[in-house]
Amino acid sequence: MTERLYKAIENHMLATMDDSAHDCEHVYRVLYNALEIAKGEDADQDILIAACLLHDIGRPDQVANPSLCHAEVGSEKAYRFLLELGLSREFAEQVRHCILTHRFRKALPPQTIEAKILFDADKLDVTGAIGIARTLMYRGTLTEPLYRHLPDGTISDGSEDIGHSFFREYKFKLEKLYDRFYTRRGEELAQSRREIAKAFYESLYREVSEGYSAGADALAQWVK
Amino acid sequence: MTERLYKAIENHMLATMDDSAHDCEHVYRVLYNALEIAKGEDADQDILIAACLLHDIGRPDQVANPSLCHAEVGSEKAYRFLLELGLSREFAEQVRHCILTHRFRKALPPQTIEAKILFDADKLDVTGAIGIARTLMYRGTLTEPLYRHLPDGTISDGSEDIGHSFFREYKFKLEKLYDRFYTRRGEELAQSRREIAKAFYESLYREVSEGYSAGADALAQWVK
Repeated sequence: MTERLYKAIENHMLATMDDSAHDCEHVYRVLYNALEIAKGEDADQDILIAACLLHDIGRPDQVANPSLCHAEVGSEKAYRFLLELGLSREFAEQVRHCILTHRFRKALPPQTIEAKILFDADKLDVTGAIGIARTLMYRGTLTEPLYRHLPDGTISDGSEDIGHSFFREYKFKLEKLYDRFYTRRGEELAQSRREIAKAFYESLYREVSEGYSAGADALAQWVK
Repeated sequence: MTERLYKAIENHMLATMDDSAHDCEHVYRVLYNALEIAKGEDADQDILIAACLLHDIGRPDQVANPSLCHAEVGSEKAYRFLLELGLSREFAEQVRHCILTHRFRKALPPQTIEAKILFDADKLDVTGAIGIARTLMYRGTLTEPLYRHLPDGTISDGSEDIGHSFFREYKFKLEKLYDRFYTRRGEELAQSRREIAKAFYESLYREVSEGYSAGADALAQWVK
């Protein structure tokens, strides 16, 4: 890829990114993850680079209208943008497939090696400490709570929460990611980050739930 | 303390709390931390309970006008509220001192044992995994970045950042908290949480900085 083409695609991406969790730093991390994974795969680097840079350009549409899917909207936007840039229809179609299939494993699974690499590279940014940090920052912008209480007043570990919480997000999403990678290197990187995410969640749960149990007992002694 | 008085003070607190990081769950954690610390100290539990419940009621004023200090505003508001509730001037003054001195160790250090316990109980909620989680959620609401770049493009560890970032907050604030406790039990609880905070920061820094170094090298091979 020429530097001129890279800059044209990068600038298009930069014009669309806005929140802390899905900002342009996320895009660069995904791009760098993808290039690392690609070292062990037979992938077209130009398709992969373009797909990584443009994979979240549908985000602002989804934020403005939550019924939209950023993968669907973004894949069409990227397709049209690449044709306008003068790239071939086949190139634009390949990138469109990568972006369309980067979000959900079940409904629309990635078919090409570039699409599988983008999928893994994007999911890697939800593993480990970076996954915890991004989730907490994003949940903060939505003013969601860290945890909820069970009917008996103790702190829920998230596994039975109905309302949103960080603990629910960990139990329903973050914890379950690690065995769902398509590439060998993606899987390897994910596994290397697994322990810190688990340790963080468990420490957080222990800190808050031990404090509550002891505190509620102590309070009952003094307030009568 | 009677349950009726506790409920009156608690309801006054609940009417003022609004964001995720300083919400009412923070207040209960501080209260429960304080009761745990107080087990080893000779403190007046009623003063301590009232001070914990009311310690952040000046937050909305500081949010609306950042030149205000929530400890100053909150201490006066709590003082007036307790007199209105019919509590003695001495009781209200004791609570006022706790709230006024809970924020900064240097400018206005806590003098009484209740004030020292509130200080430690509040600082404990910035240690360990809970400190990391609250900081990330709060920084998220401000749409601040996780990290910044050094002039050479590599990722800054936060220690030389001028602009806000989570890494800067860790290096300038979170990392330095652990030796600044007044009570034995506060110090002990803080130390028990130190390792997970350090491990999380170090893992996060490693994940993002290793990715960048390798990624930038790989990108330079493909974009020319």
